[in-house]
Amino acid sequence: MQDYTKMSKDELLEEKAKVEAKYKEYKDMGLKLDMSRGKPSSDQLDKCMPILDALTSKDDIHASNGFDTRNYGLVDGLPEAKELMAAIMDTKPENVIISGNASLSIMYDTIARAHSFGIMGSTPWCKLDKVKFLCPVPGYDRHFGVTETFGIEMINIPMNDDGPDMDLVEKYVSEDEAVKGIWCVPKFSNPGGVVYSDEVVRRFANLKPKAKDFRIYWDNAYAVHYLYDEVIDIPDIIEECAKAGNSNLVYEFCSTSKISFAGGGISAMATSQENIEDIKKTLTKQTIGPDKINQLRHVRYFKDKNGILEHMKVLATELRPRFELVIKILDEEIKGSGAGTYNAPRGGYFVAFNAMEGCANRIVDLAKEAGVVLTGAGAPFPYHKDPKDSVIRIAPSYPSMKDLEEAAKIFTVCVKLATIEKLLENK
Amino acid sequence: MQDYTKMSKDELLEEKAKVEAKYKEYKDMGLKLDMSRGKPSSDQLDKCMPILDALTSKDDIHASNGFDTRNYGLVDGLPEAKELMAAIMDTKPENVIISGNASLSIMYDTIARAHSFGIMGSTPWCKLDKVKFLCPVPGYDRHFGVTETFGIEMINIPMNDDGPDMDLVEKYVSEDEAVKGIWCVPKFSNPGGVVYSDEVVRRFANLKPKAKDFRIYWDNAYAVHYLYDEVIDIPDIIEECAKAGNSNLVYEFCSTSKISFAGGGISAMATSQENIEDIKKTLTKQTIGPDKINQLRHVRYFKDKNGILEHMKVLATELRPRFELVIKILDEEIKGSGAGTYNAPRGGYFVAFNAMEGCANRIVDLAKEAGVVLTGAGAPFPYHKDPKDSVIRIAPSYPSMKDLEEAAKIFTVCVKLATIEKLLENK
Repeated sequence: MQDYTKMSKDELLEEKAKVEAKYKEYKDMGLKLDMSRGKPSSDQLDKCMPILDALTSKDDIHASNGFDTRNYGLVDGLPEAKELMAAIMDTKPENVIISGNASLSIMYDTIARAHSFGIMGSTPWCKLDKVKFLCPVPGYDRHFGVTETFGIEMINIPMNDDGPDMDLVEKYVSEDEAVKGIWCVPKFSNPGGVVYSDEVVRRFANLKPKAKDFRIYWDNAYAVHYLYDEVIDIPDIIEECAKAGNSNLVYEFCSTSKISFAGGGISAMATSQENIEDIKKTLTKQTIGPDKINQLRHVRYFKDKNGILEHMKVLATELRPRFELVIKILDEEIKGSGAGTYNAPRGGYFVAFNAMEGCANRIVDLAKEAGVVLTGAGAPFPYHKDPKDSVIRIAPSYPSMKDLEEAAKIFTVCVKLATIEKLLENK
Repeated sequence: MQDYTKMSKDELLEEKAKVEAKYKEYKDMGLKLDMSRGKPSSDQLDKCMPILDALTSKDDIHASNGFDTRNYGLVDGLPEAKELMAAIMDTKPENVIISGNASLSIMYDTIARAHSFGIMGSTPWCKLDKVKFLCPVPGYDRHFGVTETFGIEMINIPMNDDGPDMDLVEKYVSEDEAVKGIWCVPKFSNPGGVVYSDEVVRRFANLKPKAKDFRIYWDNAYAVHYLYDEVIDIPDIIEECAKAGNSNLVYEFCSTSKISFAGGGISAMATSQENIEDIKKTLTKQTIGPDKINQLRHVRYFKDKNGILEHMKVLATELRPRFELVIKILDEEIKGSGAGTYNAPRGGYFVAFNAMEGCANRIVDLAKEAGVVLTGAGAPFPYHKDPKDSVIRIAPSYPSMKDLEEAAKIFTVCVKLATIEKLLENK
């Protein structure tokens, strides 16, 4: 692959003509492809169908504590569902509250509770002039959407290969009482695929916040979402916080949305006993209890952590080829061109593509015109503002292999075109 | 039955000795019975089991609009789920948002949104000094729990046989800008079993609120919950509001919690297009979408309104005998004694017992000591304060017929004892 950054103006113009011809060719095909969201494919979902058969008899509708799952109650979920979700998060069942079909809702509700009622007797955020959140970037757009909705000021924190810039995190958290939280996806971060190092996890657990109501919002969304036959463990943040004398410092979240069904799974939160008691004060006003039938259905099918891991290996047979296809096409078309860098993740749902500065919006626009929907440029940043206009989140999970191949190829053409345009600006 | 209120002191003392002996007899039996909550019985839930079989094949997992229900999206629910829930509420599908497993959560979230963000650009309630709600009493304890949690001042509104005292409602709503809402259960009210008259519904639709963000919180929880083979219609509040030029005045709620599974059903909200747009602004931040598999499962099983009504007739074969048993025992033991009045509802989940003033707490305590759990006295009132200490909510739906017979008999003994004690205070 030729390095665009080393080309002369004439060489760039010549290459541009070629790339534009290719682009026009794709555009004329009138395709409709989507690499925008981390959605499971139908093939992947087909592999989850036996879950729906796992609970249909009235003789098998009682939880281990004798509770009839078809009736009201158990606001924090079934004991065996706590065990299962605790196993996914590598924490203890007594730390777990089971919720509805989506961890996003638990996160929203957790922020909403702090906004309306405060945390453990602290001033409700709605009564404060200023509330701030730290946002490692690139990050998950829906996290930032929640904090923006509640008028929370968001501060970008750069991501390194082993997690967020902890020097900066420690500084903000220890010095500014308005800083009330930080969004983290500690394993296979969205979209960078970063796995936090043990040291980073421990530095999180040892934070000394100025604000009593500061919490780490630990979205363990991809806790078991491996693309390869390996297990990558990170320390249990809840245990690390307890060891550090910071038991109440973290709220952890997870769901089976990308294990069973996206929207038809179960979700959970894990935290200290004191935090659980604090949450239950209002949670018991919001709901009599989550859908326990779906909880038991999941438990009956997966049984335990091992069952989950075996199932994830099956799902990986759908996901891995998709990721490898995208990486292969990027390697063939972009590697060495200077037009961008990208990661080859070991898990999670995304590839983060770092385009040449000032090119991301143009690439997404070009792709859209050619029939390929990408996540909006800027989406992985608070206020949709990527300071470098560089990061594009690629979601390979949803399209068929055939569609994905075309979409990825079109994407590389758009990357090339935007890069050449950018380089020509300065020639 | 002798009338206690006409007895002499000696007669009362003699009767008291008899009743006390009977009470001791029951107490010595060491029973554990529960008439406290409106929970379906296991027998009733067994009749719903085929619902769990209604959706298990991957060939039948797409909604009418082609949407794969196993995947993310459709924040307001499946088109066919909107149709089904609209039919239950007698409104149009386009007015409906489908939500998770419980209408209580939708109601809580609706109040929470108004508290944090306001309604259609109005000042968020958290920024106001005072927010008030009108609470027809006796009413549903969990409604009052939600408003109390958000620090909303609650004002009792007396219930008549045809609904709340509308003169008082109209006065408060038109004169006080701090009055932002009223809780209503328009059909088979909880616990009184009252069905709002057409006139009351129309007076609601024609309210002229001083506050722009005043809404009627219309909890149509028992819309199709008939005990007898009859259909009792009330006017569609949404249409009535539109006719009155008050399109945005009402939020309506319902669920299948007492149609399919309590906690494993689906829920919905119905309101105007403008209200829906306003709600979606934040709802789309809270969730990517509700559990659509469970929506389709319900649609596949029930099909339409007629399917719902036929199913409710089956459930009524469990509920009706329980209600009739309780009424029979009350008729035998209490009628004519002056110790209390009660209704014989045509639907819903409760019987409201009106004890002699000052006796409700004592009755509930006596029952508890004898092993019968009743809803706490005061529960059907804001702040758990029944000004007359008179109303007790009886929930006959959950116990077996055998348990219910004992519980109801024990209840009548407790009523008698408390009444005699009260009468003797003034002798």
